[in-house]
Amino acid sequence: MTSQQPPLWRRAVAELLGTSLLVMIVVGSGIAAAQLSPNDVGLQLLQNSTATVLGLTVLILVFGPVSGAHFNPVVSLVDWILGRRSGAGLTLPELGTYIVAQTVGAISGSVAANAMFDVGTSISTKDRATTGHLLGEVVATAGLVLLIFALAATNRGVLAAPAVGAYIGAAYWFTSSTSFANPAVTIGRIFTDTFAGIAPASVPGFVVAQLIGAAVGVGLLLVLFPSAAKTADDVVLPHSSEPANS
Amino acid sequence: MTSQQPPLWRRAVAELLGTSLLVMIVVGSGIAAAQLSPNDVGLQLLQNSTATVLGLTVLILVFGPVSGAHFNPVVSLVDWILGRRSGAGLTLPELGTYIVAQTVGAISGSVAANAMFDVGTSISTKDRATTGHLLGEVVATAGLVLLIFALAATNRGVLAAPAVGAYIGAAYWFTSSTSFANPAVTIGRIFTDTFAGIAPASVPGFVVAQLIGAAVGVGLLLVLFPSAAKTADDVVLPHSSEPANS
Amino acid sequence: MTSQQPPLWRRAVAELLGTSLLVMIVVGSGIAAAQLSPNDVGLQLLQNSTATVLGLTVLILVFGPVSGAHFNPVVSLVDWILGRRSGAGLTLPELGTYIVAQTVGAISGSVAANAMFDVGTSISTKDRATTGHLLGEVVATAGLVLLIFALAATNRGVLAAPAVGAYIGAAYWFTSSTSFANPAVTIGRIFTDTFAGIAPASVPGFVVAQLIGAAVGVGLLLVLFPSAAKTADDVVLPHSSEPANS
Amino acid sequence: MTSQQPPLWRRAVAELLGTSLLVMIVVGSGIAAAQLSPNDVGLQLLQNSTATVLGLTVLILVFGPVSGAHFNPVVSLVDWILGRRSGAGLTLPELGTYIVAQTVGAISGSVAANAMFDVGTSISTKDRATTGHLLGEVVATAGLVLLIFALAATNRGVLAAPAVGAYIGAAYWFTSSTSFANPAVTIGRIFTDTFAGIAPASVPGFVVAQLIGAAVGVGLLLVLFPSAAKTADDVVLPHSSEPANS
Repeated sequence: MTSQQPPLWRRAVAELLGTSLLVMIVVGSGIAAAQLSPNDVGLQLLQNSTATVLGLTVLILVFGPVSGAHFNPVVSLVDWILGRRSGAGLTLPELGTYIVAQTVGAISGSVAANAMFDVGTSISTKDRATTGHLLGEVVATAGLVLLIFALAATNRGVLAAPAVGAYIGAAYWFTSSTSFANPAVTIGRIFTDTFAGIAPASVPGFVVAQLIGAAVGVGLLLVLFPSAAKTADDVVLPHSSEPANS
Repeated sequence: MTSQQPPLWRRAVAELLGTSLLVMIVVGSGIAAAQLSPNDVGLQLLQNSTATVLGLTVLILVFGPVSGAHFNPVVSLVDWILGRRSGAGLTLPELGTYIVAQTVGAISGSVAANAMFDVGTSISTKDRATTGHLLGEVVATAGLVLLIFALAATNRGVLAAPAVGAYIGAAYWFTSSTSFANPAVTIGRIFTDTFAGIAPASVPGFVVAQLIGAAVGVGLLLVLFPSAAKTADDVVLPHSSEPANS
Repeated sequence: MTSQQPPLWRRAVAELLGTSLLVMIVVGSGIAAAQLSPNDVGLQLLQNSTATVLGLTVLILVFGPVSGAHFNPVVSLVDWILGRRSGAGLTLPELGTYIVAQTVGAISGSVAANAMFDVGTSISTKDRATTGHLLGEVVATAGLVLLIFALAATNRGVLAAPAVGAYIGAAYWFTSSTSFANPAVTIGRIFTDTFAGIAPASVPGFVVAQLIGAAVGVGLLLVLFPSAAKTADDVVLPHSSEPANS
Repeated sequence: MTSQQPPLWRRAVAELLGTSLLVMIVVGSGIAAAQLSPNDVGLQLLQNSTATVLGLTVLILVFGPVSGAHFNPVVSLVDWILGRRSGAGLTLPELGTYIVAQTVGAISGSVAANAMFDVGTSISTKDRATTGHLLGEVVATAGLVLLIFALAATNRGVLAAPAVGAYIGAAYWFTSSTSFANPAVTIGRIFTDTFAGIAPASVPGFVVAQLIGAAVGVGLLLVLFPSAAKTADDVVLPHSSEPANS
């Protein structure tokens, strides 16, 4: 924690708003896709994943300088774990604040997307928890954690915005689960009975798989980038209002 | 206003030509999409949005060093508002010149696209002003303003070209209105009765929603980037014929 | 002409091979698209344009340091015109060599694409010369010339690879002609009776329209970037084997 | 070999894991595409190629600093050949280790993709070895080798991640074979009887064509970039845990 960081309340606003917009993008583009291309589910997913690649990249660019643009409890958790040794990651109260902000933001994003498309907010009935999908979530989350913290460990955090966007765009397709890889977004997607929704009964399995994936990702990170344990003080994007590449 | 800026007439030409090409891209690719993929509206929108992402990015690269590449009265308006404190934004007469150039350009772009595709210019009959769409315009414009001025506030204006292109590409899909987010472009799109057109009766609602969205965007900007009020002297792209990254 | 430039024969090889690969990409991806998605011409064009965006960007990256990666007689011609004042552009014999290399390369690219897809080489029967298409070629070529030489005039030649790729990707869609914008490529595309072909009778009109477009592009360039007439010595990409961004 | 390089075992882990993820992306997204868009093979290939562009770019970013992110025996082989003169490329034992790691990784990637999608692992029955496809592999591999080592020869290795991703995305479409261009990936794709599979009988022809293509690529490289023979000590991405652009 350096004195350059924005106050916690401002970082919490950034996490809440950024996660809200992320879910708005995922859910909203899913609704648009299903309405406009009703006869081809694969085309719908291509529209949905293309919008997410572009939108997520932009969100990380905008909110990164304020809060680090985690938008994801698993990323904040790993930031805390890796930063404990050096005392430079999130503190435990900050971690709690981030997770609450992300979860509230995710739910609000679903509700806002439903409102924009004149769809009522109701609980999703889409079951997703098959064995293959849970394995997909482990792979997707492990890859996401490895990517973000490998960039941080090699001082390339400035590439996080396009790289994380691109990663999620690929993971929509190569993982069987379409890559939720984010507990807050998973919870937020309960609140829309549309293309991108997930039934509540599938959520616990997804979240457990995401936590296992995060552990796998941290393990791979420490094998490939042993310096990650030391340099974790400046993970993801710099926590300051200065641009990453200045 | 530094002495390095191009004269106002040259900047007006850039705004007029750039906005004309922007509308030509939006309207032209919409006509091509509707002609070539008549059976899937979603595929048409994917073609339309993909062309816009690529084309808008290029237009900002080309015209940014001349005029700042606003192409949008709302962006020019916010530039004026944020710059009043420091005296470094557009002046009121410049703002008026920009808006006239953008609006004339937008109309000419519709007419040119119609001519290229051998479609007569006529007034659009496509009603778009539903409550959901108006909410979509608020969200789309707020996000656009936040993005552009957040990059400026953190000295990352050089990223505006790909970031604004990507943002609009996502917003085509996640907002229910397909994200006009631009009063001049909205007016220009009256003059084509094709895929991208908008009926005149829907325009006032869209413009009001865009102005509300701009106000929301400025509010979020000042909460998240309090320095934006001070650094507004060099908003968007540098107003000079020197490249942004030199 | 500085002593750092590769010898003319090597630059000619680069122009020949680069233009050949460019036409191979345009024609080959067109054949693949028509074979794999026979029921939707718009989807074919999306596949064709996506492959071209990616491939053209890569070709400019690879061949730029050798020859400037013109791949286009119109670009070489403008380089010669703008460089005459300062004596720093192509010389007339070099211009001739470039144009021959580009044209031979373009034809060989069509033949190679036909061979890869087991399609015999024959003359295209696809008429394209409507008034709208010719207007499209004027617009497409003017924009291409403005883009390339605006980047050069503002010392941003390093962005030419992704920017020209993106521009052509947009122009496939927003111009009615799908944006040939290149006399050598237009001639090369005579030699394939497939998706991307053009009947010989349509070629003269297209080439004339492209030359008119180039003149329009130079005119706009000189209005917007008056310094272009002076800085034309280092147009497009540096003519040396050193990387542009070193 | 400098003292900055990670130990060989860690580089082998990176090659194994990276190649595994690459095949997981190719095979997994192919299965998803075929399941979700069963009626249009071209749309399936667009989904497959889009996921690969994004995913391959990310993989090179992540693993480049560890092992150079070859993921391809042909790339490692050329690295060894070009580096022999200067003694700065892979050594022969390192080359052997890389190739074994890449091949084991590729096979594991197929198996993992099958498991995620609840598809049993079985041997592909898809014959691909036509004359046109073999010519396609020669072209695809020659282009890949030229691209990677041209960037290295001009000190632009930092661009390898997006450039190689873009190249493969184009080559999916413009080569008739959909561009395997990689013996390890070709072998890995035997082990899935799905969209991206290849029957064992087609593999020897593909591998021979890839080796011929690599030779063609090296020949073109030495004609266009004669310095490549000398600067081969730092081919592809730097073999160190420091980021390429630091």
